[in-house]
Amino acid sequence: MILRMSSLFLRTLREDPADAEVPSHKLLVRAGYIRRTAPGIYTWLPLGLRVLRNVEKIVREEMDAIGAQELVFPALLPREPYEATNRWTEYGPNLFRLKDRKGADMLLGPTHEEMFTLVVKDLYSSYKDLPLSIYQIQNKYRDEARPRAGVLRGREFVMKDSYSFDIDDAGLENSYELHRKAYIRIFDRLGFDYVIVKAMSGAMGGSRSEEFLAIAKNGEDTFVRSPGGYAANVEAVVVPQAEQVDAAAVPAAEVVDTPDTPTIDTLVDALNAKHARTDGREWTAADTLKNVLVTLVHPDGSREPLAIGIPGDRAIDEKRLGAQVEPAEVVAFEDADFAKHPTLAKGYIGPGVLGKENTSGIRYLLDPRIAEGSAWVTGADKSGFHVVDLVYGRDFTADGTIQAAEVRDGDPAPDGSGALATARGIEMGHIFQLGRKYAEALDLKVLDQNGKLVTVTMGSYGVGVTRAVAAIAEGNHDELGLIWPREIAPADVHLVATGKDAAVFEKAAELAGELESRGLTVLYDDREKVSPGVKFKDAELLGVPTIAIVGKGLAEGTIELKDRRTGTREDVPVADIVDQLVAAVRA
Amino acid sequence: MILRMSSLFLRTLREDPADAEVPSHKLLVRAGYIRRTAPGIYTWLPLGLRVLRNVEKIVREEMDAIGAQELVFPALLPREPYEATNRWTEYGPNLFRLKDRKGADMLLGPTHEEMFTLVVKDLYSSYKDLPLSIYQIQNKYRDEARPRAGVLRGREFVMKDSYSFDIDDAGLENSYELHRKAYIRIFDRLGFDYVIVKAMSGAMGGSRSEEFLAIAKNGEDTFVRSPGGYAANVEAVVVPQAEQVDAAAVPAAEVVDTPDTPTIDTLVDALNAKHARTDGREWTAADTLKNVLVTLVHPDGSREPLAIGIPGDRAIDEKRLGAQVEPAEVVAFEDADFAKHPTLAKGYIGPGVLGKENTSGIRYLLDPRIAEGSAWVTGADKSGFHVVDLVYGRDFTADGTIQAAEVRDGDPAPDGSGALATARGIEMGHIFQLGRKYAEALDLKVLDQNGKLVTVTMGSYGVGVTRAVAAIAEGNHDELGLIWPREIAPADVHLVATGKDAAVFEKAAELAGELESRGLTVLYDDREKVSPGVKFKDAELLGVPTIAIVGKGLAEGTIELKDRRTGTREDVPVADIVDQLVAAVRA
Repeated sequence: MILRMSSLFLRTLREDPADAEVPSHKLLVRAGYIRRTAPGIYTWLPLGLRVLRNVEKIVREEMDAIGAQELVFPALLPREPYEATNRWTEYGPNLFRLKDRKGADMLLGPTHEEMFTLVVKDLYSSYKDLPLSIYQIQNKYRDEARPRAGVLRGREFVMKDSYSFDIDDAGLENSYELHRKAYIRIFDRLGFDYVIVKAMSGAMGGSRSEEFLAIAKNGEDTFVRSPGGYAANVEAVVVPQAEQVDAAAVPAAEVVDTPDTPTIDTLVDALNAKHARTDGREWTAADTLKNVLVTLVHPDGSREPLAIGIPGDRAIDEKRLGAQVEPAEVVAFEDADFAKHPTLAKGYIGPGVLGKENTSGIRYLLDPRIAEGSAWVTGADKSGFHVVDLVYGRDFTADGTIQAAEVRDGDPAPDGSGALATARGIEMGHIFQLGRKYAEALDLKVLDQNGKLVTVTMGSYGVGVTRAVAAIAEGNHDELGLIWPREIAPADVHLVATGKDAAVFEKAAELAGELESRGLTVLYDDREKVSPGVKFKDAELLGVPTIAIVGKGLAEGTIELKDRRTGTREDVPVADIVDQLVAAVRA
Repeated sequence: MILRMSSLFLRTLREDPADAEVPSHKLLVRAGYIRRTAPGIYTWLPLGLRVLRNVEKIVREEMDAIGAQELVFPALLPREPYEATNRWTEYGPNLFRLKDRKGADMLLGPTHEEMFTLVVKDLYSSYKDLPLSIYQIQNKYRDEARPRAGVLRGREFVMKDSYSFDIDDAGLENSYELHRKAYIRIFDRLGFDYVIVKAMSGAMGGSRSEEFLAIAKNGEDTFVRSPGGYAANVEAVVVPQAEQVDAAAVPAAEVVDTPDTPTIDTLVDALNAKHARTDGREWTAADTLKNVLVTLVHPDGSREPLAIGIPGDRAIDEKRLGAQVEPAEVVAFEDADFAKHPTLAKGYIGPGVLGKENTSGIRYLLDPRIAEGSAWVTGADKSGFHVVDLVYGRDFTADGTIQAAEVRDGDPAPDGSGALATARGIEMGHIFQLGRKYAEALDLKVLDQNGKLVTVTMGSYGVGVTRAVAAIAEGNHDELGLIWPREIAPADVHLVATGKDAAVFEKAAELAGELESRGLTVLYDDREKVSPGVKFKDAELLGVPTIAIVGKGLAEGTIELKDRRTGTREDVPVADIVDQLVAAVRA
């Protein structure tokens, strides 16, 4: 196939789009691959669509290779199945809802767990029909609060979602492993530098869950790794409960006068100035217990206050907290909320009203680093006062623990495999043992070998297809433009004819034809009256991995080959050029 | 590729689905190609998806062959462009509308004229950029009042829509011709028995417009053909205005007493009984002028009465009338409406109050068959009375003509090419010279050769892709099941292993592998414990054109080949089978 730039529906831009912040977004728009239609909603222009189809092809081939079967569900779906699993409500404002002309509630599918479960229930009835893996590559819809970074987080996007159906846990484990291996092949072929991390299973009710993250400094996900091989999405890090310590030597708790110390810093300074420790050490933020109040908004709209106690030297990580309380959303605890809880002394809140007598009526959860028997400085529930030597277990209690405090570089890995280092990534894939949650909600049962009805166990596996295009661009560019991995590129060769010499254009056209006949896709810059400089700039921007330039060298019988990634140039005799290009592409 | 029926996600059904009326719907569901998800919304199961992709591939190849370039727009679109063209309103209840989380109005694209126009405006600015043809193959949404016949008329469906952009009318004519030829190739390859008919351009504001109709007795469209080559969708038939006749010999109009004659039949009987014609001929319905009242509901909700005068021997054709008054909808003229117009004598309405003094205030349009100078019996605007010898032009006038009366077998073709015959078809494609309507509404201008801004002229070209699957099935089946054209079939060969002999299954598996290595797709019925009878029934139902049966004959060294369409059977030596199958498929 030959794509002639003289007629290709393409305009490259020299300026970054005003709304773009990350390189992939800037470059995909500038190079004419995508075009914004509405916030988080994009049009795929011809070259972009070629790239998208290349990604789809890789995903499809690897899914087919593990025996998964492709089908396609509608994007416009009836409410009832999502009502049965409560997701109609739980999805909150992220779900696009609409009514049809008869007033029936419908939605645009955010994921299709319900539909996959129902189609298997519809067609299958016996253990003999299992295992089964089915998938689709299809438009998904999520009304993101903050669509961002072009197609990296859009509101309409293409996803491959597959589901496995097994009669028992061993079967699920096997289906999961098959998908895991397929995903490794997919992300290898897509050219990602990626990491497989433990992920939250949380509200979805399943067990084993891993994410494939493309390592990217502009990624939205933070993950941690240890030298010993631990790797987890930061939401999934489970800090172990600190072991009990002996509180026998801790004196009785004492209320101290600490005027004007509503923050940890002011508190630590005041303590060191006026209430020196008996052991001679200085007070630090790590000695303090900070009690943070938030409001949970449940999907039904109800609001619940929540108090979280964490060491004063750490902050709440909103994503970790969010993952713990899903599907509730976390919003700030406002002055109006304080007004409803008069026992709370803002800036001086302590376990007095939260954790022991709990006169506040608010649920109180502690960071697992807070050991039973450990002593803390914390609020005395009276403005201007704190309490010292307040011992967890002796002087106060809590309603449980929560994984909500930030995880930091240097924290110990939960499995003892060394110090954690944090990094950022883009979630490209998620594999997940759903278990029986959906099968139970929608009553998917089959007969087992003994003729008994048993609930099927399911796995769920997703790949962000449109997102992959952005993530590949994020990991494959330089200051001049995009640099596509060969299997993803919109063309095999970018052939540039320069100058005004008719012989050059004739030779280039002949070459394009020969390459096409050898099965290559050629992006042929046949534009007249466009300067070589502009053509070279476009070639760098568009990012086809191999650039062939027919120009001045032709008089000496050579064509210049340029490797877009390495920048190396080579003059190749005209007689050898086709073979050499075919070899480069097939390599 | 080998599709093994032992693990294929497929269940064939022996019973027709309860909601299915037409053969294609029944068979596509029974054969496990599609499955209903909601009214007019379907899931494509693995074999169905293969068929759908085959149709898409043909459409794509032929669009690419005329230099059209593929891109893809979102399905979820912002309101503003559709507001600019007034389609947000005009589409009425057929448009799926929704609001996003910020309250912005959005829609699910029914067609993408606006988006195509805007993307060209966005990227192009000069006559040098034209001509351009761009297309997409993508999900469309229309909230049909009566979704029917499975995927023949769905609410979510796949359509190929393309648009051409030209600097002048000659360019548009050329782009139109290119698409027309591509469509002929597409519908030839899809195996349709089709007809190209003149179509309405109507409200869309364009000029030349043709439809490709698959001839099908269950089709929703009625078309007419003449021996001389005239062919038109019945909505597009333009009956010429009857020529003026001489009314000199017609006596003065006379009101006659015709009690209890509110219908044409009772009127004709009463006239023949009590008011014999002077020329001795009997009165017939064709002598009467019937005045029909309807109410138009405009997109803004306003209601307008309309009176239509047609010869009494014809009925109003709702589709022809609907096409004339688009985007208004036609509803019945109710008693309440009569109450608002007291001069109307129900059952005896005449041009007295409608067409001359027009005391009713109602717009009055006549069928073009009503010639100036012709005399009619019609209502006298007084209950129980009619008027005879009322001459159009002499005794009454009207506000214009309307093409709303039925067209019948035997009517003369408008171009004089003989008598019309009516038949039914399924609209598979529509090509349409849009002209400048959208370009004007959205201000798409480019610089011409003289540096002057000119409005671009556009063509619009659609193919119903999901509908094509149903229409092909509608035209390719028998009482046993589907019979796919080869290029559309989900597999090249349906290979059936029968009996319990291990040697049979071994040979069949070997054969499947050999066929796969030759590039064929094999649907291999490798199911154990399924009787030959069930396997043969399934093969007939599924409709792969070539069936190969490995069974009893294997002992004698033969395999049975069956042609699904002709039913011919042949025993082929094992040694020849692969070559013979490959030859049959490649033929």
